[in-house]
Amino acid sequence: MRLRNVKNAKDIVFNSSYVILEPEKYRNSYHELFKNDHPIAIELGMGKGDFIIEMAKRNPNINFIGIEKYESVMVRAIQKLDGLKIPNLYLIRMDGINIDEVFDHEIDTLYLNFSDPWPKKRHEKRRLTSSIFLDKYDHIFESNPHIVQKTDNINLFAYSLSSLSRHGYILERVSLDLEHEDITNVETEYEKKFKEMGIKINYVDAVKYLKK
Amino acid sequence: MRLRNVKNAKDIVFNSSYVILEPEKYRNSYHELFKNDHPIAIELGMGKGDFIIEMAKRNPNINFIGIEKYESVMVRAIQKLDGLKIPNLYLIRMDGINIDEVFDHEIDTLYLNFSDPWPKKRHEKRRLTSSIFLDKYDHIFESNPHIVQKTDNINLFAYSLSSLSRHGYILERVSLDLEHEDITNVETEYEKKFKEMGIKINYVDAVKYLKK
Repeated sequence: MRLRNVKNAKDIVFNSSYVILEPEKYRNSYHELFKNDHPIAIELGMGKGDFIIEMAKRNPNINFIGIEKYESVMVRAIQKLDGLKIPNLYLIRMDGINIDEVFDHEIDTLYLNFSDPWPKKRHEKRRLTSSIFLDKYDHIFESNPHIVQKTDNINLFAYSLSSLSRHGYILERVSLDLEHEDITNVETEYEKKFKEMGIKINYVDAVKYLKK
Repeated sequence: MRLRNVKNAKDIVFNSSYVILEPEKYRNSYHELFKNDHPIAIELGMGKGDFIIEMAKRNPNINFIGIEKYESVMVRAIQKLDGLKIPNLYLIRMDGINIDEVFDHEIDTLYLNFSDPWPKKRHEKRRLTSSIFLDKYDHIFESNPHIVQKTDNINLFAYSLSSLSRHGYILERVSLDLEHEDITNVETEYEKKFKEMGIKINYVDAVKYLKK
């Protein structure tokens, strides 16, 4: 995500009613925050928010939380939400590495869209599908861990498939050309651009079935 | 594989010392046929044999068996073998659907190179990574089932990854651009053409770890 300095980004994030300022406080009680028992889906690295906002609008019976590291990016999502009342949507500004300090066995689905590929081997741990992150995710899911990833990056995708598989996930659905699949899809900002450029989008829907 | 009528193909196959004419006879005794305990690798759909012949030459301590359905194609491999003595290579002309009638817990690795994608949903069962075939393969492996697949076809590849995963295979290594990976690779006839055309080759190395 290219960063531009947004004037007052900190203030805008701080004052938005969509933003959860102290997310650790709600650990293990996010259902209470939403005031319902609907499943909670999160997007780690929501960028400018197109995906999570549209998902929340389309699916009123699912709760959504968009997570973004950078205030200067998150502020774009907040601007899009100006004047909109979407009761099933919240945003959190945080580094994904702390995700297990914020959620505790209460998430239904994790969306990873066009995550940073961190192509260098020495940065492998930073990839959002590395074993470090997958270990953390194990603690956030209410039931069977469920990750849905989209990316244009073939190396990150290949890495993710292997990593998810090694970590016990079953690859329920895989596509190397999402646009031509019979899969309901909400596009991200990146995705729209890639589509115009003729770049194929890779997709995986993976579930880890817990032994009972 | 495009078929051309080759004169005397039947005779050439019948008379080649590389060809095992009654493969069911050796079921459970292929190690005796090779007269050693080296691991046995097979290629289902070897086509004109470039891959399996080169693999056999490069790896004298592994036994190889190339399997091909069509005599008119297999004959091309036999012609390439003319005058060569490769003790660790045999060929079998058969339909892959009968593979579990020919091998019984004696195979180490199965190679699937540029298999027919059978794109229509109603032909799914014919794909060499469908659950029907994966069930059959379970009976041919000596220890942990091990499948290595290469294909240019993104739909077959996506299907295979999901099918292998559902069937208990761990995707030890995945690539969506084999040419640029640090993986030792012997090219097939198809692969050379695809490479020249700039088409990316997909690759998966999958192992099913049996519970002990």
